[in-house]
Amino acid sequence: MMKQIKVIQIGLGPLGQKIVSYAVRRNGIEVIAAVDPAPDKAGKDLSKLCHLDKEVGITVSPDVNSAIKKNKPDVALLATVSNLEKIVPQIEEIIRYGINVVSTCEELAFPWIKEPELSRKLDEMAKKHNVAILGTGVNPGFLMDFLPIAFTGICQEVKSIKVSRIQDASIRRVPFQKKIGAGLTLEEFGQKKQAGTLRHVGLTESIHMIASRMGWKVDRTEDILTPVIAKSEAHPHLSPLSHPPDGSPSLRGRTEEGGEIPAGMAAGVQQIGKGYVNGEEKITLEFRASIGEKNPRDTIEIKGEPDITSTIAGGVNGDIATCAVIINAIRSIINVTPGLKTMVDIPVVSFFKSV
Amino acid sequence: MMKQIKVIQIGLGPLGQKIVSYAVRRNGIEVIAAVDPAPDKAGKDLSKLCHLDKEVGITVSPDVNSAIKKNKPDVALLATVSNLEKIVPQIEEIIRYGINVVSTCEELAFPWIKEPELSRKLDEMAKKHNVAILGTGVNPGFLMDFLPIAFTGICQEVKSIKVSRIQDASIRRVPFQKKIGAGLTLEEFGQKKQAGTLRHVGLTESIHMIASRMGWKVDRTEDILTPVIAKSEAHPHLSPLSHPPDGSPSLRGRTEEGGEIPAGMAAGVQQIGKGYVNGEEKITLEFRASIGEKNPRDTIEIKGEPDITSTIAGGVNGDIATCAVIINAIRSIINVTPGLKTMVDIPVVSFFKSV
Repeated sequence: MMKQIKVIQIGLGPLGQKIVSYAVRRNGIEVIAAVDPAPDKAGKDLSKLCHLDKEVGITVSPDVNSAIKKNKPDVALLATVSNLEKIVPQIEEIIRYGINVVSTCEELAFPWIKEPELSRKLDEMAKKHNVAILGTGVNPGFLMDFLPIAFTGICQEVKSIKVSRIQDASIRRVPFQKKIGAGLTLEEFGQKKQAGTLRHVGLTESIHMIASRMGWKVDRTEDILTPVIAKSEAHPHLSPLSHPPDGSPSLRGRTEEGGEIPAGMAAGVQQIGKGYVNGEEKITLEFRASIGEKNPRDTIEIKGEPDITSTIAGGVNGDIATCAVIINAIRSIINVTPGLKTMVDIPVVSFFKSV
Repeated sequence: MMKQIKVIQIGLGPLGQKIVSYAVRRNGIEVIAAVDPAPDKAGKDLSKLCHLDKEVGITVSPDVNSAIKKNKPDVALLATVSNLEKIVPQIEEIIRYGINVVSTCEELAFPWIKEPELSRKLDEMAKKHNVAILGTGVNPGFLMDFLPIAFTGICQEVKSIKVSRIQDASIRRVPFQKKIGAGLTLEEFGQKKQAGTLRHVGLTESIHMIASRMGWKVDRTEDILTPVIAKSEAHPHLSPLSHPPDGSPSLRGRTEEGGEIPAGMAAGVQQIGKGYVNGEEKITLEFRASIGEKNPRDTIEIKGEPDITSTIAGGVNGDIATCAVIINAIRSIINVTPGLKTMVDIPVVSFFKSV
């Protein structure tokens, strides 16, 4: 039997809780501790906080030091912030105990171009403490960067890469619908956009990961966020959630639970990232999530020799996939040389079970 | 500017010639020597033999020793045989000069299960000589093993994996059509099947690569080869090649050039590989190539959490992709630790250009 890999979960927001909930069901992985300094989390029972269906006997610690007193984990799963500058001291605190890090931090997925100095610092710290650090997730980390890069392996020439991630938010949880601005007036949407809460972080990191691997020098990037506006023709039907199986009343108009979005209001968000090489748009990443999206999919289009178009019909559920890739990355990260790694530096991350 | 990677091509059959023809056009790669002991190749001018559109000033050497006297390559591209036992002494001869090996040898793509002793021997030899060895190609090596494995990276559970590689041979070169038995009577097909010349080598290697990565212990494999039989309804039209653009006569009946296959004859070959785990069929690899195939595609179907179905519409041309992956693998293989590697042991193979 494969040795159990011991993990500590750091950060118990919605995503951190989902990771714990999956990790405790996964064979080959043992959750031995959890950390979150928030007053409503530290000191709480992990099973209750994460709504686990079994008792794991772990109390949430307020900090890493107290969490690992009894038992040292192999890997820390770090789900706290999206921002690189903010996560560096958190990583520093973890790796000085000789613990590897797999993080959901979007800006850590490929920080080498935007933050070369911080990246070098992380890389040196990792080597000093003989650990590996990886930022990953479904996006950035997989669908819009690693996967198109992998497809170019069978290309003799690559001229441009476009990835479209088109999601129908009707079937997603309410916080996700809120996050994408579904049901807002365009004025409200504009305010939220201004406040920065609608923006998906990671398109620029994906662009840099692709370009770096292709050997392309990016002159500039764009990241353009606009509302998807509901049209009566485009969103004529109630979404699945608005037809509860128990026959309870229709949720028409209750947009936050997936009902119909009135024409002219925001049905969701579209964000387009572009990477230019010698003035030419070589990389285009199209991310769109809205209520009532007709043809949800994840599509990769490579123009080159040969052209390749690959599609995952229906698209990939981001929550499920992110938890999966974080846990699946554990095996790869404990077997690599020390340093700051990205998804293209390590053996392919795949599902595994202990045998 | 990136350093030029120096390569030697060993084996100048149809595929070896294609690799040379692509490698000399590729930036970042320099072909410095070529070897083939065949009397019609050794001593010949490489540019003429491979129909290159430029002079590379290389005479084909009869053996490795004489080929590398002047200039030591970084990597040998070895395209000689499919059989592992036969390729081991060839690899031995190359690596004692400290040269890394990327080979098209199908049985080298994942030899660890079928040939554990030879695999260990290769691994030890590679480490002794401080080089890395990789067997790859489009299939085995990418479409039916590496790629489905990569997709499982976003899965929380994997129950079964099916890969379908369905090719329309109408648009492929004549040797490929002959190789798949298109136009043969069923009796002739049976004779060729008996002689072993129709069989695609590599399905079992792909099964073992997938299973090993998933942590599945395969009890047994199957590899079932049958003809695809032409039906008048299924193949009513002349294939593209039978309508030459210059208006020359229809090639109806000239099956070897892509014409109509009479009903009841072989239009091509189907080969199905199956991998059983605890008696259950967990891995299914369907390889079909025939004249007039309606819906050519490469499809991966993962049953698990979530289910994933990914399709490359039209499918991937095997010749182009194999040359690409062999050359693209060079960068990965010169940067890894020594040993016998497979596509799942090394950083993702991708297109690259020198900058």
